[in-house]
Amino acid sequence: MFESAEIGHSIDKEAYDAEVPALREALLEAQYELKQQARFPVIVLINGIEGAGKGETVKLLNEWMDPRLIDVLTFDQQTDEELARPPAWRYWRALPPKGRMGVFFGNWYSQMLQGRVHGLFKDAVLDQAIAGAERLEEMLCDEGALIIKFWFHLSKKQMKARLKALKDDPLHSWRISPLDWQQSETYDRFVRFGERVLRRTSRDYAPWHIIEGVDPNYRSLAVGRILLESLQAALADNPKGKHRGNVAPLGRSIDQRSLLGALDMTLRLDKADYQEQLVTEQARLAGLLRDKRMRRHALVAVFEGNDAAGKGGAIRRVAAALDPRQYRIVPIAAPTEEERAQPYLWRFWRHIPARGKFTIFDRSWYGRVLVERVEGFCSPADWMRAYSEINDFEEQLVNAGTVVVKFWLAIDQQTQLERFEEREQIPFKRYKITEDDWRNREKWDAYVQAVGDMVDRTSTEIAPWTLVEANDKRWARVKVLRTINQALEAAFARDKK
Amino acid sequence: MFESAEIGHSIDKEAYDAEVPALREALLEAQYELKQQARFPVIVLINGIEGAGKGETVKLLNEWMDPRLIDVLTFDQQTDEELARPPAWRYWRALPPKGRMGVFFGNWYSQMLQGRVHGLFKDAVLDQAIAGAERLEEMLCDEGALIIKFWFHLSKKQMKARLKALKDDPLHSWRISPLDWQQSETYDRFVRFGERVLRRTSRDYAPWHIIEGVDPNYRSLAVGRILLESLQAALADNPKGKHRGNVAPLGRSIDQRSLLGALDMTLRLDKADYQEQLVTEQARLAGLLRDKRMRRHALVAVFEGNDAAGKGGAIRRVAAALDPRQYRIVPIAAPTEEERAQPYLWRFWRHIPARGKFTIFDRSWYGRVLVERVEGFCSPADWMRAYSEINDFEEQLVNAGTVVVKFWLAIDQQTQLERFEEREQIPFKRYKITEDDWRNREKWDAYVQAVGDMVDRTSTEIAPWTLVEANDKRWARVKVLRTINQALEAAFARDKK
Repeated sequence: MFESAEIGHSIDKEAYDAEVPALREALLEAQYELKQQARFPVIVLINGIEGAGKGETVKLLNEWMDPRLIDVLTFDQQTDEELARPPAWRYWRALPPKGRMGVFFGNWYSQMLQGRVHGLFKDAVLDQAIAGAERLEEMLCDEGALIIKFWFHLSKKQMKARLKALKDDPLHSWRISPLDWQQSETYDRFVRFGERVLRRTSRDYAPWHIIEGVDPNYRSLAVGRILLESLQAALADNPKGKHRGNVAPLGRSIDQRSLLGALDMTLRLDKADYQEQLVTEQARLAGLLRDKRMRRHALVAVFEGNDAAGKGGAIRRVAAALDPRQYRIVPIAAPTEEERAQPYLWRFWRHIPARGKFTIFDRSWYGRVLVERVEGFCSPADWMRAYSEINDFEEQLVNAGTVVVKFWLAIDQQTQLERFEEREQIPFKRYKITEDDWRNREKWDAYVQAVGDMVDRTSTEIAPWTLVEANDKRWARVKVLRTINQALEAAFARDKK
Repeated sequence: MFESAEIGHSIDKEAYDAEVPALREALLEAQYELKQQARFPVIVLINGIEGAGKGETVKLLNEWMDPRLIDVLTFDQQTDEELARPPAWRYWRALPPKGRMGVFFGNWYSQMLQGRVHGLFKDAVLDQAIAGAERLEEMLCDEGALIIKFWFHLSKKQMKARLKALKDDPLHSWRISPLDWQQSETYDRFVRFGERVLRRTSRDYAPWHIIEGVDPNYRSLAVGRILLESLQAALADNPKGKHRGNVAPLGRSIDQRSLLGALDMTLRLDKADYQEQLVTEQARLAGLLRDKRMRRHALVAVFEGNDAAGKGGAIRRVAAALDPRQYRIVPIAAPTEEERAQPYLWRFWRHIPARGKFTIFDRSWYGRVLVERVEGFCSPADWMRAYSEINDFEEQLVNAGTVVVKFWLAIDQQTQLERFEEREQIPFKRYKITEDDWRNREKWDAYVQAVGDMVDRTSTEIAPWTLVEANDKRWARVKVLRTINQALEAAFARDKK
């Protein structure tokens, strides 16, 4: 894989000097066009052998191009805010918005390679990390990002010579590499595992570019040209044609039965039972969140449901159990300008709770496979891929110790009608009913289908959906609280093992 | 000051039950109206004696109101990201946007009171903190925020009884107060210094409300009513009438001499001197940023100047000295939607560097007293108060160890004309020239006046302005680099003392 990066590529000064001015100008042009279109972000990943010119090349690119439009990011030591959340959070918070370029040093590849070279884990775990990187990059590309991956290479002999030279250079010696490259073994292992990583993660949408690092002229021109060509191609590309050719249809129920139709909507609690059970479950939740074992976990509760199904009321009964300092409620409305400049999941990642904390999402990332699907706000390809992106997202939360509970509050059409009419009567409830609500009612069947598909595809053993029969608000509220409590207790019980 | 909060206020259950429903409804109405207007944020500060019902009251408000529109925030232990920046950063990042309510527990008042009660500092330092809080709140109010401050009070006898009761309550005992309230001395000191704080910081725009905390019915109704009345008054208020009656005019130069006119615009460097000095200053900067002493500091460089004065070129020469991982360039453009929902300085606070880091602002917070003043984007009252707000802001940066350098790059009208014409000729420079640039030229004199006032009012001993004669780009670039280097060296030298 690295064969042609060990053959001594070089460019003489004359040829170099002749090409650079036009290249620089074209790069600047592309950069300004990128900013003007503001249609996609550019993510440049920098990896490879120590001493192969990674830092020097990025420095040079910042000189050639307009550094005001580039964010160069390193990911060294994690801060305590990062350590309290899934590992990917630090990358999400650093993503460049559309129209800008982010250069990621010390990215997910360096992390997995260092771990493997140091022997912190074996190939199986490396492969898990590789698969995670692949899925992340595929998602970013589907969201429009241009990803350019550079691997700077040196043969072992070249590296040794280069390290010796760098050691004598006071301008370089202060930079500490997390790996001990003086050891011959480190190089061998790095290259071996690097090959494995590159083989698996060089994909059509985000290929690796291997750059021989010995000759500065060669590596600078090579990187500059690849960057330029990638930028120009992406800028000229028709965004409409981006999606894959075929989207396999999901298929519809062929016997008129639906998941929601199978719910027993007559379930109810009388007032006395309700008050007793509510108080019991609220006290249980309060106790669980104060439990020392909660420090190893975070809690995320997602509330979706029909309009007027009682999401707000259920959320308030959950909140009422707790000290307001323990939870945060995030109402999901239309994305802001900054959110629209990022991949879809970004606006949820930014609210992910730290360990020990509880975040309640009033509507959520499922909007894409619900309202956006039904209303046609995104293409079928977009909402189809969202199922697996969401599963990936939730898996990352769960792997970091987060307990994820998800509720669909279901009411029937008659109950909804009655509640709409009631809302229009009561002054302080009139804010709760809009034209949209009446319009959504006409799409009842489409929502039934969308909810069924959503549950089938995203109710997982690690983050199951709970369908809540919500014609009776009391029943719904107690079921919600009880489900959260059971999920927390199950997570605490698993800790012991 | 606390006299009328020790007289045993109480409301009987009947009166309480009779009033609550209407109060809740009115609070909900006000909350939804707040959201709909999205014209200002509400900041509720919660302070006072331990055991006086702070937590209980906030919990109750969250039950009465819609908790989805309230963010309850605590400020306990600072995270390492917070510790690396000025103390106020953690409050800025938590400010509620317009239309929402933030409830701040453990805010700036608790911090200063704890420090004083623990004897970490004396009254002089407490008074500094008080003055800082006053200025912060005044600024937030001027930016439209509604600030409501509650002090929950108990007499010493009441407190002792309450603490005893709480101690026996398992639901409460897990909460740890940073002060040892069991000591009689703690109460006395807290009340004494609390009085000092309240006296100084109870202002017309953000008065304190002292609430006797013994009777839950009384304190709940009292807080609910104050909140409601404050909200209703602010919602009904005409935002246009907000500014103070009189804005004292700044006065103009009466002899046609101006600060910019006094610059020697013939200063220049020839090519050989330039190249030698540039390399020297760049190496010096690189060395300074790698210096161990830099770990105690951050660096902020602000670039302002005439259009086409060469800000971009100067920034690139600074950046070229450094590893791109060491700096970040923040280009300031029109504020985003999220930025517009916050006080003016919020969009700069979010980019404040951590210790050891360097942020370059390509245009800055001075926009308010330059383009916004000249173009009339804000009222005279707004840009007039900006001078002192900016001085306060920079003082906070400097107090946290940040070195602040500020450049005005000045060219004359003839030079600007030549550069505009050149830009229109060169393809990759055409992005740099817009209609706005030509329009701004017509306001040359207004800018001369604005720059003069800006420098007079914000060039301080802790963060001086450097006027850069930029008709000659070489001269300008070397002067910029040298100024940064001198500022860093001076800061390092001061560390020794």
